[in-house]
Amino acid sequence: MARNIVARTKDYPQWYIDVIKAAELADYSPVRGCMVIRPNGYALWEAIQADLDVRFKETGHVNAYFPLLIPASFLAREAEHIEGFAMECAIVTHSKLQKGADGKLAPAGELEEPLVIRPTSETIIGSMYAKWIQSYRDLPVLINQWCNVMRWEMRTRLFLRTAEFLWQEGHTAHETADEAQRETLQMLDVYAAFAEEFLAIPVVKGAKTDAEKFPGAVTTYCIEALMQDGKALQAGTSHNLGQNFAKAFDIKFLGRDQKLAHAWTTSWGLSTRMIGATIMAHSDDEGLVLPPKAAPHVMAIVPIFKSPEEQAKVSAFITRLLVQLVGEAEVAAAAKRVGGEANASLARYFFDKQTNQSIVVDWRDNRPGDKQFHWEQRGLPFRVEVGPRDVDSSAFVLKKRLDRSKEVVQLGAGINADWLRGQLDAVQKAMFDKAKTFRDANIRTAASYDELKKMIAEQPGFVRCHFTPDRANEAKIKEETKATVRCIPFDYNGDKATAGKDIYTGAETSTQVLFAQSY
Amino acid sequence: MARNIVARTKDYPQWYIDVIKAAELADYSPVRGCMVIRPNGYALWEAIQADLDVRFKETGHVNAYFPLLIPASFLAREAEHIEGFAMECAIVTHSKLQKGADGKLAPAGELEEPLVIRPTSETIIGSMYAKWIQSYRDLPVLINQWCNVMRWEMRTRLFLRTAEFLWQEGHTAHETADEAQRETLQMLDVYAAFAEEFLAIPVVKGAKTDAEKFPGAVTTYCIEALMQDGKALQAGTSHNLGQNFAKAFDIKFLGRDQKLAHAWTTSWGLSTRMIGATIMAHSDDEGLVLPPKAAPHVMAIVPIFKSPEEQAKVSAFITRLLVQLVGEAEVAAAAKRVGGEANASLARYFFDKQTNQSIVVDWRDNRPGDKQFHWEQRGLPFRVEVGPRDVDSSAFVLKKRLDRSKEVVQLGAGINADWLRGQLDAVQKAMFDKAKTFRDANIRTAASYDELKKMIAEQPGFVRCHFTPDRANEAKIKEETKATVRCIPFDYNGDKATAGKDIYTGAETSTQVLFAQSY
Repeated sequence: MARNIVARTKDYPQWYIDVIKAAELADYSPVRGCMVIRPNGYALWEAIQADLDVRFKETGHVNAYFPLLIPASFLAREAEHIEGFAMECAIVTHSKLQKGADGKLAPAGELEEPLVIRPTSETIIGSMYAKWIQSYRDLPVLINQWCNVMRWEMRTRLFLRTAEFLWQEGHTAHETADEAQRETLQMLDVYAAFAEEFLAIPVVKGAKTDAEKFPGAVTTYCIEALMQDGKALQAGTSHNLGQNFAKAFDIKFLGRDQKLAHAWTTSWGLSTRMIGATIMAHSDDEGLVLPPKAAPHVMAIVPIFKSPEEQAKVSAFITRLLVQLVGEAEVAAAAKRVGGEANASLARYFFDKQTNQSIVVDWRDNRPGDKQFHWEQRGLPFRVEVGPRDVDSSAFVLKKRLDRSKEVVQLGAGINADWLRGQLDAVQKAMFDKAKTFRDANIRTAASYDELKKMIAEQPGFVRCHFTPDRANEAKIKEETKATVRCIPFDYNGDKATAGKDIYTGAETSTQVLFAQSY
Repeated sequence: MARNIVARTKDYPQWYIDVIKAAELADYSPVRGCMVIRPNGYALWEAIQADLDVRFKETGHVNAYFPLLIPASFLAREAEHIEGFAMECAIVTHSKLQKGADGKLAPAGELEEPLVIRPTSETIIGSMYAKWIQSYRDLPVLINQWCNVMRWEMRTRLFLRTAEFLWQEGHTAHETADEAQRETLQMLDVYAAFAEEFLAIPVVKGAKTDAEKFPGAVTTYCIEALMQDGKALQAGTSHNLGQNFAKAFDIKFLGRDQKLAHAWTTSWGLSTRMIGATIMAHSDDEGLVLPPKAAPHVMAIVPIFKSPEEQAKVSAFITRLLVQLVGEAEVAAAAKRVGGEANASLARYFFDKQTNQSIVVDWRDNRPGDKQFHWEQRGLPFRVEVGPRDVDSSAFVLKKRLDRSKEVVQLGAGINADWLRGQLDAVQKAMFDKAKTFRDANIRTAASYDELKKMIAEQPGFVRCHFTPDRANEAKIKEETKATVRCIPFDYNGDKATAGKDIYTGAETSTQVLFAQSY
């Protein structure tokens, strides 16, 4: 088989692109900076959405939808906000296309005010909250939105940094500062639990420094993950916006004390970038490795046969296996359905209707080796091979994607849905443990700036140290090391703080941070 | 209670807006032509998405995501397509905002080519299919996309006609013309089944005339529904695009005969307009009436009490009722959750986790009459009232939204999830039957153009007649009657065709159509 994926050690950025290409997760589009999320990639987003949405609803949130276009003047109402976003906005200026004298189509119908494609929706949502919120009885407002946003980026990278991306943005309004802070931290916890439980990606929770916070926020909290190349990736952020946007948009309510007060708002977001994180956290030189909970197909079954007789024999055995794994009703239902992928000779059997996860049987007219390669590169947790000899011994070969191990399994009564669920859970746990072991091994502690520089230069990863956040010093360190403060972790601060010396200034400080180069 | 909804007979368009406002389904946004879909309205879209998405997946489709922005030149590649959309496009021309000499923000960073916010995605998707499809082995491609689109409309109407709206657009590519036609009709059937089974809206299936078809399609099929004011509403369309877009975007494949051929493509879409259809098909002068399958909350329970003792007594009884309806585990889980709506004193209990439907108990500090009014206007299938006297007789009052009937129900062992499901199914069926009776009563047959004119003028509705589709004649009839050919129904044509005379020209024709004024 031709190698179509470069080794991580050889060229990590190229490896990342190769993995995406081989698994058909995404593609470049004809529009600069915009990507196409192909069905295999979008299925991951659907899995992420489904899991997160339940967590949002269980914490009392509801979904809504606000306009894509925002009047340019709205962005300008919050000073930091416009500073942060003005330079990377897609601007709508016209309402039609007309043929000019040269026969070419040109914009026509100029708008009175330019409109900005939302880079984030604090402003447009704030303007609506001002209308909806009158009394403390109208609070809290707990709304989330699933949508597309645009930020014109100079250098783009599939999933990680694209002009348009998909995300969810929560926007809440509260009666008190305390309640807003509790909400901000609750949603950070939701993100952390989701990343660790669902995507098997261990994360560090903490606060951003002022230099790294969201434009317009009082405090930004984040979850930071470590990729296999030792670079950090910000995987979700939760912002306490204080009364900044409430003041900019006049979100006021009559309080219990009969006085008018500005609401306290928060916002929090997680995007398709998380797909990039999942790819980079777990995949190997053979291609994609998916955490079982997020895998659209949990298993691919590849039949091996040379004659119609062998095919019949193998097919009967696979049906037996399927009946044990998904039940007779689903086997019958699947027989009536078209294949779940482009090619109808891929038969799809739902293993879990609620999570939309399936087992696929690959009856395509290709060589078995090609099929194994195909599914391996797509990161399915398990592949099964069944040939005539396996049928004779009432067994099948189970291949585990994570460690590429092979095992002959007897098709006894114990091979059922619970067995498969157990196998999947074990892989899910092993993937988290593996990523966590790697992450923990890559958090080193520096006692001086020289040490920090040396560590970052020698081998990327997180570097923990005492440091007082400071815009000027952070800028200088970034210039010299390309590393930034990823976060001020909860684990080393607050009631866990210890006294120490700022590695840059030498001053006494109890603040500890994590530095790293990042995506 | 102050009347906040005008009667249908008095002012139908205002009634529609009043219903939406009272149920808090949507709101106008500060951006002209763009609406905000509020949580109550968005929950309907989520229900629609969930149900349709299963139908798409069961027919072998997968979801993907393509860019929001399309190069203007792409739209121009298909002549009819650009004609149809050029005059109502949002055009992106710049990539940032900069302060001018006057201190005001103005667009800067002009793009080389203007980009159009997708009004529909045949062109951008076609350009990708050209890249992905090489051989007949790559076919069929069966992709759907859930997204936002923009068409700058002159007159907007909440849900029915807004500049930005949400929809799904399926785009498929096939090896043969036959297969593409089968797909086109299959998706029309999916839409019809969805509208009738899920939203309880009876629809007529048929083809559009050339004058009314999608710009660039060979044939457009549609489902047409009748609203209570007798106007028709196009509720979903499925287009056989022939090889038009394949030729415009060079989607070619090497066939089984080793020759290069253009693929045959289809597209089909259904939008948030369907929420407008649902509102208009079923609601009454008291406000929204939701089909049970689409209702986010299937029941609201309103406690009545005057003292803490009465509250305790009523609360215990409601808990008993809830345990019987949703089970003890869910009652315990709900106790830990925040309220599902903005106000935490609204307790939400999941009745069906898979469909995300719940029962809400309204403990807010309002008068019971106000609460009844609140939930009535939100269209919940059932409301329950429980006061101390009801508890004494171990009963509750069940109010049915559809016919506004009241019934005293004993809380026996038979009051359980199955009982509620049965009640909901009965309402679902009754709503469909009611809408169908209305629809059928409003299809009249005209034998002459004078009859058609008279019928349309006297009382809106569908008018059936023999007519040969013809752009010029349709335009004249539209001018005189404001009615258009809604469709050429399958039910009166094909093998069900009968000979007759064209009501406009008097010529012999076997084609029968439905005329109506429409949304």
